[in-house]
Amino acid sequence: MAETPTACLIIIGNEILSGRTQDANLAYIARFLAELGIKMAEARVVPDEEAAIVEAVNECRAKYRYVFTTGGIGPTHDDITAKSIAKAFGVPFGRNAEAERRLLAYYPPDKVTQARLRMADMPEGVELIDNPVSAAPGFVIGNVFVLPGVPKIMQAMLDGLKNRLVGGPPIRSRSIVCFAPEGEIAERLGAVQAAHPEVEIGSYPFMRMGTPGTTIVFRSADPAAIDRAAAAFLEAMRAAGVETNEELLV
Amino acid sequence: MAETPTACLIIIGNEILSGRTQDANLAYIARFLAELGIKMAEARVVPDEEAAIVEAVNECRAKYRYVFTTGGIGPTHDDITAKSIAKAFGVPFGRNAEAERRLLAYYPPDKVTQARLRMADMPEGVELIDNPVSAAPGFVIGNVFVLPGVPKIMQAMLDGLKNRLVGGPPIRSRSIVCFAPEGEIAERLGAVQAAHPEVEIGSYPFMRMGTPGTTIVFRSADPAAIDRAAAAFLEAMRAAGVETNEELLV
Repeated sequence: MAETPTACLIIIGNEILSGRTQDANLAYIARFLAELGIKMAEARVVPDEEAAIVEAVNECRAKYRYVFTTGGIGPTHDDITAKSIAKAFGVPFGRNAEAERRLLAYYPPDKVTQARLRMADMPEGVELIDNPVSAAPGFVIGNVFVLPGVPKIMQAMLDGLKNRLVGGPPIRSRSIVCFAPEGEIAERLGAVQAAHPEVEIGSYPFMRMGTPGTTIVFRSADPAAIDRAAAAFLEAMRAAGVETNEELLV
Repeated sequence: MAETPTACLIIIGNEILSGRTQDANLAYIARFLAELGIKMAEARVVPDEEAAIVEAVNECRAKYRYVFTTGGIGPTHDDITAKSIAKAFGVPFGRNAEAERRLLAYYPPDKVTQARLRMADMPEGVELIDNPVSAAPGFVIGNVFVLPGVPKIMQAMLDGLKNRLVGGPPIRSRSIVCFAPEGEIAERLGAVQAAHPEVEIGSYPFMRMGTPGTTIVFRSADPAAIDRAAAAFLEAMRAAGVETNEELLV
């Protein structure tokens, strides 16, 4: 089976690190990529500081097939992502003519401000990412995809990248709910994982109406391998007298 | 004014990277630390893989005053945080007698499993972090604080660390809502930031009932500096005829 390409998300923004804003992009992008057969292998949250952005981008682009950034591409002084990425790649930074054309076409003439046109300043030689919501494009440079932080706009732009990203087979998952706490099924579960190393098995405790339980998640690009591991686990639970259920909402 | 100590959070868990689970710990810990005068400077999300955990812990503990980890300290095979941290510090890993004592006191004798006792396996020489919810302790080694991923338990344990962490003056914030889009106030706002470099000013667009607006957040450990920058900004908005409001819920 083909190798699954990896991805890394760099979330740029003081508001996430201060706790003011709850990030909503990591989970969305992770699920989007899994559908395309790309595995999110790491995520970082960095402040609106050039040195921090440059360092994270350069470390991650060397390490992963795809890097996505969210945040910091608006019109205000704290939007320094584009300039920082030019610095990370060591390329000139300046006005992108096509991006400027799109902004001028979108805003009524009396609403065109210097601040808004700054959103057309980008590293030299980028490929634009269409923004069907509010015109200001993102961009691709090397293996780095630069997206905005506002979830609705980010999602619309990401959607347009479906055919631009090359994945492996989609990553599937199957979840089984056990009505027993983790500590009482852990040994049997560990044996199933040891016997099925080709499937990634996760164990997540929960509490429902005062009763502890565990959700077991099987993940792999090979649906048959998932079913083999799940069958072995279900058999082990039957033998232990633990009630189980398929979880339908994942 | 005293330097503000920095912190980094390492979120350990495949379930966050797959998008199955939405992290809720970063925002909580960031606010908790801000109250103590400690600034969250970076966060990383890494998978349940030893090499990834070792690398992140060693990079971050060299870089920041405090490092917190969440996740991966339960009883199942995918809980490998404690062992990975022993490896990062190059110290032996084994049964912690006091942690074992607490687990044995908490579980009825017929509920004591080998898997549950694994939660007492830790790097040698650690200081325990009390767990008032479910007994299994976290631990401190060097400047690294190891906490569980379940938010309610993590929060109770973090609370007990209030007097263990040494912060600077608390980081304050003040938020002002402007009824104008970012792109129309960005130039005036940039001038305020340039004149008040001692305050971190963030700009966050929003849409309320179809009308775009911007929330401006002023952050500093010095309340007087916040008020000076905010007053300059309010004056600039008045001059531009932009309506503003204090935001009371931050």
